[in-house]
Amino acid sequence: VSHGIMTYSDKEAFAQAVVAGDVRSAARLMRLADDREPLARDLLSLLFPHTGRAHIVGITGNPGAGKSSLVDNLITSWRGRGLSVGVVAVDPSSPFSGGAVLGDRIRMMRHATDPGVFIRSLATRGALGGLSRSAGDIATVMDAMGLDRVLIETVGVGQDEVDVVRMAHTTVVVMVPGLGDEIQILKAGILEIADIFAVNKADKPGADRLAMELQSVQHLGTDQRHIPIVRTVATAQEGIEELVDAIETHAGLLRSSGELQERDARRLTQAVFQLVHEAVDADLTELFDRLNKENAIIDELLSRRSAPATVAQRLLELINKI
Amino acid sequence: VSHGIMTYSDKEAFAQAVVAGDVRSAARLMRLADDREPLARDLLSLLFPHTGRAHIVGITGNPGAGKSSLVDNLITSWRGRGLSVGVVAVDPSSPFSGGAVLGDRIRMMRHATDPGVFIRSLATRGALGGLSRSAGDIATVMDAMGLDRVLIETVGVGQDEVDVVRMAHTTVVVMVPGLGDEIQILKAGILEIADIFAVNKADKPGADRLAMELQSVQHLGTDQRHIPIVRTVATAQEGIEELVDAIETHAGLLRSSGELQERDARRLTQAVFQLVHEAVDADLTELFDRLNKENAIIDELLSRRSAPATVAQRLLELINKI
Repeated sequence: VSHGIMTYSDKEAFAQAVVAGDVRSAARLMRLADDREPLARDLLSLLFPHTGRAHIVGITGNPGAGKSSLVDNLITSWRGRGLSVGVVAVDPSSPFSGGAVLGDRIRMMRHATDPGVFIRSLATRGALGGLSRSAGDIATVMDAMGLDRVLIETVGVGQDEVDVVRMAHTTVVVMVPGLGDEIQILKAGILEIADIFAVNKADKPGADRLAMELQSVQHLGTDQRHIPIVRTVATAQEGIEELVDAIETHAGLLRSSGELQERDARRLTQAVFQLVHEAVDADLTELFDRLNKENAIIDELLSRRSAPATVAQRLLELINKI
Repeated sequence: VSHGIMTYSDKEAFAQAVVAGDVRSAARLMRLADDREPLARDLLSLLFPHTGRAHIVGITGNPGAGKSSLVDNLITSWRGRGLSVGVVAVDPSSPFSGGAVLGDRIRMMRHATDPGVFIRSLATRGALGGLSRSAGDIATVMDAMGLDRVLIETVGVGQDEVDVVRMAHTTVVVMVPGLGDEIQILKAGILEIADIFAVNKADKPGADRLAMELQSVQHLGTDQRHIPIVRTVATAQEGIEELVDAIETHAGLLRSSGELQERDARRLTQAVFQLVHEAVDADLTELFDRLNKENAIIDELLSRRSAPATVAQRLLELINKI
């Protein structure tokens, strides 16, 4: 079916195929969503009633923290527990998203033939824009497909990555001893989003000190939550079951305390705001171009005759007249 | 003057004091801008006719790349050339923004008493939000103060940081040998924004290979620009004059080719869009809350009765009715 001429029942059939777990349809929808095709929005709306089952887990940490090996092992552990797993990789250094060293790439390939595993990497498209929106759409598709756990892997610096992680129910922050910048990272807002700390490469010197620092730094947070610290050696499969246990325990706590609903509400509200922003942006670009043609706005700015706030005010008045 | 009762002529006097280089007024305006006080917007508009003189230089790169030592040395070099310098530090690992190890902090203190240097760090406020907007406002104030060069120092990963760097006329990407993730970083969109590469710690093994890789990777870019590569050892003050020369040469090329105006237009357009977004966001939050009170929108989302796109559509209709 060419998507130019899709009828409502075509769309329903497409959505049903995704819900039934059809991998080709799911992959096609993810591509459409990535390309911001209007069709994707309709399909995602049709899928929406079938979502809300998957537990979404964010994994973040510096490049070199070993997130990919950890993700690889988490997949294996969950599969061993009879759960299906989706992975959204938005880390440019991750083998899942194509930035692999050869060994990593070979290791992850063992999941490629497992029908209970669905891995999707997100191209950063050079300009890094819109990552969190695309990651959210892909997580929605995976949720609708019936995958039990959805992992979103990202790099833990920058607003965009923090936004990605905000879409998760449970966020694991991966740290390693010896990088020396642990505390800086905590300062940069990561403490607020961490539900679990994984101290990876825990066989390396400095792991004890790092774990102790993470313990003591918890008291600096605004909300005084207890954040479990799990030691792992991903390359030796050590601590993986403990990490999965910590994630599952956190999921249970969220459910029983009602916090899961709160986080879900926050995620969905964020999705709504993103869609509104996108629509406003499209209008805005058009309005700005028109205003510039009629009034040479850019010249006014360049010659410092009109301040940005003045131009913004004029655009706002135009928006409200649409 | 309490800013609750500032008249237009009070505001003009305030703006004039900033233009005259009064440090206390400038610092106060930066604080107001950071706090999103409406007064700041008026004052920035009054300053705007006095801007457009400073050359704005973005410095980005991984934590540990030695950006701070480099910034410290760039200040010294420009001061030696009779130019005044402003620094906006948005890197949480930078001594300028407070993430210092003691040695760094002491080193930078030597500029603290120099009236030709103005350093302002940006708090990340835990949530990392709005960095690029605040950095832009601060650069505007520094420009109006008459500072000749304004450096914006940031960490080179994430959309927010890339946005910050987009506000610069000339962008220096700092890389160091031995981190092993150079090429990943280039993939993540940094190549598109680099005007100059600084290979710092150039006395370390691997510097030759890194420089060669940077040379060969240039051909991967979409625009086939020539990006100069300057080797520096910031801790030994090596290569600093060459780096400043490269920046000044780039500034000259921008001016003579007309590209400076183009970049300025892009910066100012971005500032306009940010102001519109901010205003729309304020409306949006209010509308969403109202819609939720009247129609329990969040419940509709949580129970999967209304999809985010449906709710977004309703909000857009409300916005257009304001």
